[in-house]
Amino acid sequence: MLSEAAQQAGIDLQLPCGGQGRCGRCAVIVEEGAVRRRSTQHLSAADVEAGYALACQTTVEGDLVVSIPPQEKIERRLKEGKRAAKVELPFSYDIHDQPLRKYAITLDPPSMQDQTDDWSRLRRELERRYNLEGLRIQLAVLKKLGRVLREGEWTVTVVVELDAWDRPNGPPCVIDIIPGEHLESLWAVAIDIGTTSNHVWLVDLISGEVMAQKADYNGQIARGEDVISRIIYASKGNGLEELQSLVMGTLNRLIEEAAQERSISTDEIYKAVVAGNSTMIHLFAGIPPETIRLMPFITTINELPPLRAYAVGLNINSVGRVDCLPGVASYVGADITAGVVSSEMCKSGTLSLFIDIGTNGEIALGDCTWLISCACSAGPAFEGAGVVHGMRATAGAIEEVWIDPESFEVSYRVIGDGKPRGFCGSGLISLLAEMFVSGVIDKSGNIRLDLAGFSKPARSRVREGEHGAEYVVAWADESATGEDIAITAVDIDNLMRAKAAIYAGFSILARSVGLSLADVERVLIGGAFGQYINVENAIQIGLLPDKPFESFQFLGNTSIKGAYMALVSREMRDRVRRISGMMTYLELSADNTFFDEFNAAMFLPHTDESLFPSVAVQGPSDKATSP
Amino acid sequence: MLSEAAQQAGIDLQLPCGGQGRCGRCAVIVEEGAVRRRSTQHLSAADVEAGYALACQTTVEGDLVVSIPPQEKIERRLKEGKRAAKVELPFSYDIHDQPLRKYAITLDPPSMQDQTDDWSRLRRELERRYNLEGLRIQLAVLKKLGRVLREGEWTVTVVVELDAWDRPNGPPCVIDIIPGEHLESLWAVAIDIGTTSNHVWLVDLISGEVMAQKADYNGQIARGEDVISRIIYASKGNGLEELQSLVMGTLNRLIEEAAQERSISTDEIYKAVVAGNSTMIHLFAGIPPETIRLMPFITTINELPPLRAYAVGLNINSVGRVDCLPGVASYVGADITAGVVSSEMCKSGTLSLFIDIGTNGEIALGDCTWLISCACSAGPAFEGAGVVHGMRATAGAIEEVWIDPESFEVSYRVIGDGKPRGFCGSGLISLLAEMFVSGVIDKSGNIRLDLAGFSKPARSRVREGEHGAEYVVAWADESATGEDIAITAVDIDNLMRAKAAIYAGFSILARSVGLSLADVERVLIGGAFGQYINVENAIQIGLLPDKPFESFQFLGNTSIKGAYMALVSREMRDRVRRISGMMTYLELSADNTFFDEFNAAMFLPHTDESLFPSVAVQGPSDKATSP
Repeated sequence: MLSEAAQQAGIDLQLPCGGQGRCGRCAVIVEEGAVRRRSTQHLSAADVEAGYALACQTTVEGDLVVSIPPQEKIERRLKEGKRAAKVELPFSYDIHDQPLRKYAITLDPPSMQDQTDDWSRLRRELERRYNLEGLRIQLAVLKKLGRVLREGEWTVTVVVELDAWDRPNGPPCVIDIIPGEHLESLWAVAIDIGTTSNHVWLVDLISGEVMAQKADYNGQIARGEDVISRIIYASKGNGLEELQSLVMGTLNRLIEEAAQERSISTDEIYKAVVAGNSTMIHLFAGIPPETIRLMPFITTINELPPLRAYAVGLNINSVGRVDCLPGVASYVGADITAGVVSSEMCKSGTLSLFIDIGTNGEIALGDCTWLISCACSAGPAFEGAGVVHGMRATAGAIEEVWIDPESFEVSYRVIGDGKPRGFCGSGLISLLAEMFVSGVIDKSGNIRLDLAGFSKPARSRVREGEHGAEYVVAWADESATGEDIAITAVDIDNLMRAKAAIYAGFSILARSVGLSLADVERVLIGGAFGQYINVENAIQIGLLPDKPFESFQFLGNTSIKGAYMALVSREMRDRVRRISGMMTYLELSADNTFFDEFNAAMFLPHTDESLFPSVAVQGPSDKATSP
Repeated sequence: MLSEAAQQAGIDLQLPCGGQGRCGRCAVIVEEGAVRRRSTQHLSAADVEAGYALACQTTVEGDLVVSIPPQEKIERRLKEGKRAAKVELPFSYDIHDQPLRKYAITLDPPSMQDQTDDWSRLRRELERRYNLEGLRIQLAVLKKLGRVLREGEWTVTVVVELDAWDRPNGPPCVIDIIPGEHLESLWAVAIDIGTTSNHVWLVDLISGEVMAQKADYNGQIARGEDVISRIIYASKGNGLEELQSLVMGTLNRLIEEAAQERSISTDEIYKAVVAGNSTMIHLFAGIPPETIRLMPFITTINELPPLRAYAVGLNINSVGRVDCLPGVASYVGADITAGVVSSEMCKSGTLSLFIDIGTNGEIALGDCTWLISCACSAGPAFEGAGVVHGMRATAGAIEEVWIDPESFEVSYRVIGDGKPRGFCGSGLISLLAEMFVSGVIDKSGNIRLDLAGFSKPARSRVREGEHGAEYVVAWADESATGEDIAITAVDIDNLMRAKAAIYAGFSILARSVGLSLADVERVLIGGAFGQYINVENAIQIGLLPDKPFESFQFLGNTSIKGAYMALVSREMRDRVRRISGMMTYLELSADNTFFDEFNAAMFLPHTDESLFPSVAVQGPSDKATSP
């Protein structure tokens, strides 16, 4: 494959669909030499004539000269982000509530009368003073034990993992030893591995506070934008090892940056708690994720045993424990169990709906006594993919839209305040809602080509485009790309499918336990994307249930918050496990009512308008001009 | 250093004393260029004139041309050894007495109705059928779990470590999984790491039998012949890593050879039990042994936690458990605890003395209820070092000597039946005894230069040589080296010191518990060297206590036998631990009667002749001719 040849030559081609030939974004120009195109999807005959070829679908048949057109660069909005806000815990921190300890201890030196070996001497004293039993030690610590004891003149600081939240984690264990007395800090990290973005919080376990927050795009993005693409990539050649090393590269850089910010060495970080969806956790640990995408959608493991950092290559102390939080199923992972815990959903007795909308929409419903969950294959439309002018929520993305129901003219807000380049997810939700309530599209999502009333009728925003009907939001002369930025009938269909899948999930979850969405008292919205959703717009298109605004809570990145809580509190760590154990998983693809519910939700806001009493369509049926 | 330069150039120079400049065996000839000799010990002025320099004591001061004279090659007598005898266990083997298991199991496949993850599915069934609790799994097995389950169509064979002999080893753990049903074999190895030679026994845990035996010299020999030289070498630069990799090289080759002999892959070997002295165990695990040779002689650890093979680089299944047996002190290691167990010393109620004579003489005294041990720094004389014509027990070594008390003429037996090249340890004991009983030397070990009565008086075997008085055993014309092979007064002094140190150890051990050597009922002699000792000779020189021949038992390599017994029996493994815990260690260098006992033993057989009633001196006091 040309893409493999590029990689061997050290050229990092983006393969957003993981090399399936489906996204068309790895197109290159073959200037000289023979190639064979297995697929020319996304390429016109003229493109092929001009030498274009999809790198992931083209075999090399001899020496080639290839040029690579500029690819979409992943901008680092995450990194540029404003200073992170102080993270508050919903409980008061007590160092004794978590299982990592530092002890300073002075030993009697050995003598000809007491030739006890170094480890027995240390263990004896630790066990006696701190009431530890069956204390163990890591080989890496044994290798420096003799030197450190003597360098510290028999006064040393030891880092001990107490028996953690369950028996299988074993007896207490010494994981480091330092000469002298150093009790001033004790470092750990909480990690969230998102399919798109990775987050690292550096935590001081003495105070329990988050001391640095770092985030960046997951280095795996270049090998597939969604989990399915990544799974496919992982199954080819050494794709699994490559994906593991890409995400480790990202995480290790973030850990390094966080450590630098606090002027510490990464060797001083003794623990990591990791949340992420099931595919991300498999890839992180180097476990093949293949079976996740194949019927009947099985993970290798939902709850990994505790690992040592060296076993996965994480850049903390090499024997530091890496605790991957447990998930529930292939598509309801640790990001959701951690999210549910950090949402405190399970703490109150009120019926709550927890939603994390990303490539998949993961949903959990319940109260303190029961929980049921499902995953809706929403597709990547809300992440700006599968939409002609879709893009990530970076500079140039239209993130909110307003349409005048009289003139059908449009105004919008762009991230970074520059010229627009496309729509991000929240912009698409806003646009769909505004098109609907202003009457640019009808209940079925069809663009009303018969629309009149534009202030400049000569330049009608509705028109028949290359891909069917479309509505122009930004004209070429106001866009950063020099092209009209429009939404097409196909785009709208993708968005309708995405929102219908999610709403069908809500309905089925509720009905499966004999309830209706009307019984839901709180809607908890997790995920970074959730923070940017305009609730009114989301209700207008039928993506969120029609509830009073105060029912909705936006919780931000609930996954890393859950990892942080599990890191600093045994009780919270127990709760994640309990939730993963008690949460019922409903496989929507096996539910025979799904298709009906999905179809019913393929209208704006829904076939059953009584479910959305607050949604009023302002126009334009009376203003439409028939041709 | 020139030795380091040679190593960098890929030339494997022998450094028997570990680079201390003490053995003189790394001498090279500097043909061109400038060097600085830090020490010229072992080199005559003429040698230096001729360009000789000790590689380990010579710094390079510019470009050099160096030639390397032929060095003493380590011959592979061990490898050439006859076919190993079948090893008998002193108990009947039952696979359930050891903690490694293989189970074949068939699982219900997953479905849309049962989306249980692969690991939970396997665990659930294993726990249910085999009454396991808290079962864990290694990450390496998780990485192939999904594939193997499907390849085996849900019938698989799993290898499980049950909770081994103590709580810290943790709950049962799956360490491998194979598609299909394969219960025909289950492999493990017993390992003995001697300072000089390494032994590997491949064991089939289904039958409990030793299926292959391999031995070779420890690859570390080239970096020091005794433990002290190795410790010194380990403390320099990356000496520790180098010594670890050298011994691992030897062991891994032996394991590979054993596996090939049984046509299996080394990945099928799931466990190793390792015995060896404390320094060897430290080096095997990569733990710095420095403190072992420094007052007050402390090990880092006497009982290592169970390790995984990948952590030390042992060539068995990468997650196979490596169980290093526990030792007692710096100079009474796991070779002795294993030896005591395999000697069955502790099983009978009779008072026994266990001896393992090597570079050190390790001694244990006791019965089933108590045990006391010590180590005597005998020095390497009995291993053929520290003696002008000393050599290892390889082809050409004189291993037994007979002196005619009338003519003082000598006959001898040579290993391999060729011409003699020197004396090995058993030859030296025999020679010393024969010289004493025939009257060639007196009670103090002095060579009687006044000796007459030789059949060819012109060619008297006693003479004043370069290094003082000497006795010629083989004339130049009958030797392989073309030189006279003689024993000198200095050699005799070294041998006397060695035997005196060991006998002093016996005496002090016995006295420390209020007994005398006369109370000892059995003398158990371990170690390969022990097998070749002529007991009568050893009693004649006062190396062994004067007991009837039937009191002595020669047990061969008790260290690997102990490792094998600990491998196949939990009870035996427990016993090694109990012995290491109950055995009192007496540090002779801290005992203020040692010097007296040592001096008393510096006579043949001893100052107190009443201790050796059976030793009759046949001559030559009446035959000596005064000058």
